[in-house]
Amino acid sequence: MSSLSVPPPKRLQKPLAVPYRHMFGPGPSNVPSRILLAGANPVIGHMHPEMFEIMNDIKSGIQYLFQTKNSMTLAVSGTGHTAMECAIFNTVEPGENVLTAVNGIWGERAADMAERIGARVNTVVAPPGGFLTNEEIEQALSKYRPALFFLTHGESSTGVLHPLDGIGQLCHKYNCLFLVDSVASIGGAPLYMDQQEIDILYTGSQKVLNAPPGTAPISFSERACKKIFNRRTKPVSFFLDLKWLANYWGCDDKPSRVYHHTGPISAFYTLRESLAILVGEGLENSWERHEKVAEYFHAGLESMGLKLFVKDRTARLPTVTTIVAPHGYDWKEITTYIMKTHNLEISGGLGPSVGLVLRVGLMGFNSSKANVDMVLEALKDALKHCHKSKV
Amino acid sequence: MSSLSVPPPKRLQKPLAVPYRHMFGPGPSNVPSRILLAGANPVIGHMHPEMFEIMNDIKSGIQYLFQTKNSMTLAVSGTGHTAMECAIFNTVEPGENVLTAVNGIWGERAADMAERIGARVNTVVAPPGGFLTNEEIEQALSKYRPALFFLTHGESSTGVLHPLDGIGQLCHKYNCLFLVDSVASIGGAPLYMDQQEIDILYTGSQKVLNAPPGTAPISFSERACKKIFNRRTKPVSFFLDLKWLANYWGCDDKPSRVYHHTGPISAFYTLRESLAILVGEGLENSWERHEKVAEYFHAGLESMGLKLFVKDRTARLPTVTTIVAPHGYDWKEITTYIMKTHNLEISGGLGPSVGLVLRVGLMGFNSSKANVDMVLEALKDALKHCHKSKV
Repeated sequence: MSSLSVPPPKRLQKPLAVPYRHMFGPGPSNVPSRILLAGANPVIGHMHPEMFEIMNDIKSGIQYLFQTKNSMTLAVSGTGHTAMECAIFNTVEPGENVLTAVNGIWGERAADMAERIGARVNTVVAPPGGFLTNEEIEQALSKYRPALFFLTHGESSTGVLHPLDGIGQLCHKYNCLFLVDSVASIGGAPLYMDQQEIDILYTGSQKVLNAPPGTAPISFSERACKKIFNRRTKPVSFFLDLKWLANYWGCDDKPSRVYHHTGPISAFYTLRESLAILVGEGLENSWERHEKVAEYFHAGLESMGLKLFVKDRTARLPTVTTIVAPHGYDWKEITTYIMKTHNLEISGGLGPSVGLVLRVGLMGFNSSKANVDMVLEALKDALKHCHKSKV
Repeated sequence: MSSLSVPPPKRLQKPLAVPYRHMFGPGPSNVPSRILLAGANPVIGHMHPEMFEIMNDIKSGIQYLFQTKNSMTLAVSGTGHTAMECAIFNTVEPGENVLTAVNGIWGERAADMAERIGARVNTVVAPPGGFLTNEEIEQALSKYRPALFFLTHGESSTGVLHPLDGIGQLCHKYNCLFLVDSVASIGGAPLYMDQQEIDILYTGSQKVLNAPPGTAPISFSERACKKIFNRRTKPVSFFLDLKWLANYWGCDDKPSRVYHHTGPISAFYTLRESLAILVGEGLENSWERHEKVAEYFHAGLESMGLKLFVKDRTARLPTVTTIVAPHGYDWKEITTYIMKTHNLEISGGLGPSVGLVLRVGLMGFNSSKANVDMVLEALKDALKHCHKSKV
C-alpha cells in the first residue's frame, strides 16, 4: 500500500469568499437572485422525465428567443465557444470551403476552428468598428463559393451590431449555409432566425439572458440538418455530434432518448429560469428597453465629451458600447480605478480594439437608466482622478 | 420591421419545480446544500483576480485528489466527456496508433473519439465484469505499439474497479502514454497518479465529489506535455487546446493570462466547495468509508440471496455496485417501482451490461450505512411486489 505524497492543500481550508461586483463589462453580466436560486435546486437525473420536461421548456424558450420554428433547437452543455465548435464541427467536412466575416475577434476564431478540422478558409474583412455591405458579402460568396458563411451579429470586441437583412437569402442563392454568432446581441436587439434565413444560430447564457456561463442555446434550420445528416465523414467530436445531441434533446424521431452525456443539470435550471424571465417581459419589450437605455447612455457619453467608436448610429450594439479610449489617458488606469473605487467592471478592448476603446456592457436586467447613471458617474470620476498626459 | 412569428411559450409561464430524489444511480449523485449554496454566490468575471484564486484553489484540490504534483492540472469547462475529448484531442495526432481497453462502455467511447480524429485504433477486450491482466496489456502494447493506451479505472457500466499497479510502467516501457478515466472511482478508491505513472487522468464533478455536473478535473504528466507541446498538427478543438487551457489556468510560464473562453463561474464555485469538503475529510478517510460501506452493502445483498455481477471481490468498485438482475423479474419494473414507491434512483445496465444488472451508486456523502439500509429495504420491497415469472 502506498501512502499519500501530496498533502491536503491549506488554501482549501479557507472558506469560499466571493465579492459582489457590478458586472458592466462585455460579460458575464450580473445574475439576478431568482436565477441563482433556481440553480440551487436539488440535482436530479439527466434522464429523469422531469429533466426532459425542463429541457423541453428550454427548447421552447430558445425557439422564442431566436424566433424560429426549427425542431432542431437545444442547449449545448458548454459555453459559447462550445456552441461555436458544435456549429462548425457538424456543418463542415474536411476540404470544404468556409468563409468568415472578420470584423472583430469572433470571425478570427471561427476561421481558426474551421482550419483545425481541415476546411479551406477565406475571410472577408471589415475595418474595426465598421461592417460589411451585402454587396461585399455577395462578391465574396461568388468568389469563394463556401459551404458555410460565418458572421457575428453582435461583435462585442468592436461594439458593432451587424445588419442581417438579405444575407441569408444571398447565402442560399450561392448554396451556402448561413451561421450567425449572436452571443452578445440576442434578446437585446431584433433578430428573426426564420425570416432572416439563418441556418445555424447560437448564443451564450451569460449575456442578455443573465444566467451563469455554462450553457449555449443553438438552433439548426432544415437546410442545415439536411447537410449535416448526409455527411460522408463523422464530425470530429462525439460530444458535439448533432446526431447524438438531437436524440438527447428529443429533436429526432426516435421513440426514446438514449444516454449520450450528463448535461449540466443545475445550469439547465438557471437557463430555464432566464428564459422564463425573458418570456415574462416579452422579446419586443426587451429589445426596446435595450435600445432606449443605449440611446440614453450614448447621449450621456457624448455630453461628457467622449466619442463612440462605432460611427454609424444604426450599427451600434445596444448591449455592448465601445467608447474611444479617452485621449491622453491610460485606459488600463481608468478601468482599474473604476473597479477599485466603484466596484464596477468595465473593460478595455479585445483583439483588434485593444488599446483603442473602453467597453461597457449593459445586458439583460443590467440594462437600466439607473445603471447608466452609475457608469457615467464612475467615468467622470475616473477622468478627474486618473493621470492625464500633457500631449 | 418584421413582427414576431413565434409567440411566447406558455410552458415557461409555469414556475420551475424540481423534486428531491435519492440519487443512488451511477451518477449524478446528490449534491449537499453546502455545495448548492456555494453555486448561488454572485457571478464575477472569469478574469478577475478573485476568480484566478478560486481556480488556483481548484488546481490544488485536484492535485490532492489525484495525488499528483503535475503543474498541468486544471478543470475543463464541461462534463466528463469533454475531459475525455480534451485528453484524446491533445495527445493524439492523425495516423497515430491508439489502444483502448474495452471492459464496458467507456473504452468503446474512447475508441470512437480517437477514430474520429484519424487515429488507428485497436482494442483489447475484457469480458463484462472482468478485467485485464498486466500480461494481457503488455501483449497488446507490444503488438500494437500505440502512442496512447486508454483504461477505465472505475467501469461504472459493469461495476469493475480495474487494477492499476504496474500498467503505467509497462506503457512507458513501450513508449506509450497512459490515459486513465477515473470518473466513477476517484475519491472513492485509492489512486496515485504520480506513483502509478499515469500520464493523463480525468474525472467528473458529479460522482464522488457530489458537485453538479459541468466541470471535469484533468491532469497531464510532464511526459504527456512533452508530446502535446511538440505536436506537428493543431488539436481539432480550439476550445480544448491545452496550450490555451494551460494559460487560462496559469499552468504555463507566461507572465499573464489571456482571454480564452468564459469558464462556468458558478460551477467552479461548486467544484471548489466539493474539493474543500474532501480535503476536510481526508482522502484516505474517504477511501476507507467507501470501502466499508461497500462491504456492508455487498454483504446485505448476498444475505438477501442476490448475486454480485463482479466475481472477484478485489475488483469490485466501491462506488457503483452491479447486482445480477434478479432471476425471473423484469429489471425495468424493479427500478420503476423503487423510484415510484421509494423516491429512489437505482438503474439498469449500460452498454454490455444492459439487461444483465441493476446498478446502485453510493458516492461521496451518499456513501453511508443508513443509505445502504434504505436501498436494501427498497430492493426487498420491490422483489416482494414486482411480478415474478414462474420460469
